[in-house]
Amino acid sequence: MTPPRHDARNGAAEVLARCAELDAFTAAPDRLERVYLTPEHAGANRATAAWMERAGLTTWVDAAGNQWGRREGSTPDAPALVLGSHLDTVPDAGSYDGMLGVLMAIAVAERLQETPLPFALEVVGFSDEEGARFGKALLGSQAVAGTWDPAWWELRDQSGVSLREAFTGFGLDPERVGEAARRPEQVVAYLEAHIEQGPELEAADRSLGYVTTIAGARRFHLRVLGEARHAGGTPYPRRRDALVGAGEAIVAIERLARASDCIATVGQIEVRPGAVNVIAGQADLSLDLRAATDDERDAMWDRMRAEIERICAQRGLTVEVSEQHRASVAPCASWLQEVIRTAITTTGDSEPMALWSRAGHDAMAVASIADIGMLFVRCRDGISHHPAEEVREIDVAHGIDALERAVLGVAEVWHADR
Amino acid sequence: MTPPRHDARNGAAEVLARCAELDAFTAAPDRLERVYLTPEHAGANRATAAWMERAGLTTWVDAAGNQWGRREGSTPDAPALVLGSHLDTVPDAGSYDGMLGVLMAIAVAERLQETPLPFALEVVGFSDEEGARFGKALLGSQAVAGTWDPAWWELRDQSGVSLREAFTGFGLDPERVGEAARRPEQVVAYLEAHIEQGPELEAADRSLGYVTTIAGARRFHLRVLGEARHAGGTPYPRRRDALVGAGEAIVAIERLARASDCIATVGQIEVRPGAVNVIAGQADLSLDLRAATDDERDAMWDRMRAEIERICAQRGLTVEVSEQHRASVAPCASWLQEVIRTAITTTGDSEPMALWSRAGHDAMAVASIADIGMLFVRCRDGISHHPAEEVREIDVAHGIDALERAVLGVAEVWHADR
Repeated sequence: MTPPRHDARNGAAEVLARCAELDAFTAAPDRLERVYLTPEHAGANRATAAWMERAGLTTWVDAAGNQWGRREGSTPDAPALVLGSHLDTVPDAGSYDGMLGVLMAIAVAERLQETPLPFALEVVGFSDEEGARFGKALLGSQAVAGTWDPAWWELRDQSGVSLREAFTGFGLDPERVGEAARRPEQVVAYLEAHIEQGPELEAADRSLGYVTTIAGARRFHLRVLGEARHAGGTPYPRRRDALVGAGEAIVAIERLARASDCIATVGQIEVRPGAVNVIAGQADLSLDLRAATDDERDAMWDRMRAEIERICAQRGLTVEVSEQHRASVAPCASWLQEVIRTAITTTGDSEPMALWSRAGHDAMAVASIADIGMLFVRCRDGISHHPAEEVREIDVAHGIDALERAVLGVAEVWHADR
Repeated sequence: MTPPRHDARNGAAEVLARCAELDAFTAAPDRLERVYLTPEHAGANRATAAWMERAGLTTWVDAAGNQWGRREGSTPDAPALVLGSHLDTVPDAGSYDGMLGVLMAIAVAERLQETPLPFALEVVGFSDEEGARFGKALLGSQAVAGTWDPAWWELRDQSGVSLREAFTGFGLDPERVGEAARRPEQVVAYLEAHIEQGPELEAADRSLGYVTTIAGARRFHLRVLGEARHAGGTPYPRRRDALVGAGEAIVAIERLARASDCIATVGQIEVRPGAVNVIAGQADLSLDLRAATDDERDAMWDRMRAEIERICAQRGLTVEVSEQHRASVAPCASWLQEVIRTAITTTGDSEPMALWSRAGHDAMAVASIADIGMLFVRCRDGISHHPAEEVREIDVAHGIDALERAVLGVAEVWHADR
């Protein structure tokens, strides 16, 4: 590997400073939590729009709350190469998952301000990727992809507020969400930079990697039903304890996934009635399941479901399953993989690393209207969705260089195509 | 067994109707939840006081929110035989756990209104037995027993309201809680009727039983600490999933208790951050542990704790334990066991059944100032702490007869003693 080239003035320090500035838009004073259609969402949009305008972009918020910026290409009304990621977070989040990709895109737009491009250049900060508020991920990018499902209007957050009500409260008109959709002919391609959220780049001592495919998650809600009874007076043979059944299921889910190449996570649990001296009559669990291919993932779910039903039946419990989310594996376009791979080589890494993403990304939704490409940036210890998320300035600097180079690479291919 | 004697006019139907009337004092329209120091607590006190007055009792609410009624004995200012139970409930409760004993006591007072007694007769509706609001049980009866601990003032409910603040909000003065305490010389004895909360009377086809001893529970709060990380990006070897550790602990707790004579229940669990796509970094559990003797119970806890620590260590998790509640086994006074046993025989059951209580009762707290006796009433399928709680009118009728007879029995013994 040749020694890395690093232009200290390429904007990496500013990108990191802006990530820190966005931390101020949070629902809680002591931790970062910025979910869809909240005052903090609006605040992050406003700050991002100001940075977009300094980069020479014209800005607007679309009908689903996504923040956009655009500069025209050499031909008026040409289709746009879209760069972006998301501005929402999980509860108790780190500062980079999503935001880094938006701010790197703005830095690239700023650097290319005087460079003629054959297409328009757009930057988008998607409004909901994590699905932390309504349990349904990729709401912002699905609106842009035109795959919004009217059934979602009745999704409710933990306070009982429906998505429809939240739209109105944010100043958006639910009837007009269709206006956020972009047509395929309006989009040249979509490029997203994102922290890796895994340990492989760090283990291989590399700043950047290009993504081959994005695993599609399936998410389920499991409700285990038993009987709430007195904790003292009910002997074991009479118990139908939903929480012990849920505990056994959680352990089995891990055991099955671990023995395969799948990743399964139960991140939520709630029990009712939830009193210290009452046996749980009901336990509600979330399940998030991912694999490198849809077939592996679906086969694993069939095995898990059978095992959970077996555990519950043995305990006199019943289980209700509903699927909350299902996304197919999304492959990155091979020409964009090559553009990004080549772009990474200009940062001094002569054999860029190919990665597949176990995490979902907005690019999955955008894939239904445009070719997608993704650039991963190394993060410390693979940590994400946690305040300890950390990226190195040198890696961000390489990332901005590579993303800028990828934009020019797309222009070359696009030119050659016409 | 001789055929049961049942006087249809002994008040059983009215007691059941009043239990149903008390259901109206609830925090939720669709289920019964009446916890300490709430408007519904005040409402239940007012309704109960009205029934007490119709039974010829003079009423007051004491400095800890307990509802009292009293009639004097033949000698002015004589000590009192206290009958009672509690008026608070768990969340999503049935109509009888606690309330039945208070309303049976009022029915007995009404029937004995014209009968001279050598002692005063008091009825108490304790304000907090379940501990559902502040996690600490027997608050009402501990105030009466004079065992109130000033450390409790800082206990907080799920909304963050402290016990001190709740006292003030209810119109009580925290500084005067000591005035609720009764001195041993003021109390002849304490008798409590309660649903069995177990299946033994039903299995033996009996209406009533007398209690030999009340098991003391220990309650713990367990906090399992891992690391919140991205559900997709974190491979299994890097995970420290607090919820899988908690699940394994919950299964182990059941396995250990089941193999012994102990009863252990995890009725509460909460995880943080609690998002569908984030590994749980923290899981908080309650543990309620009971046994026939304190020694068995304490030995079981030592084994459980070691097992939980082993499970957590193996997963790179840590566990923090704090004890929330500890009550010793409380024996019923042998002379009161005999009085109640004899009283039951007058209802037609010539060989009354002796039971030990796995559930805690206000009598445990009162035991520190007076001899205690308990009468159990059969309930359907042993169900309690659940809307499906059910008692039969014939059993309540036998119970009122037996409780009345027990009051007269105490008078005979007390007379003989003097």
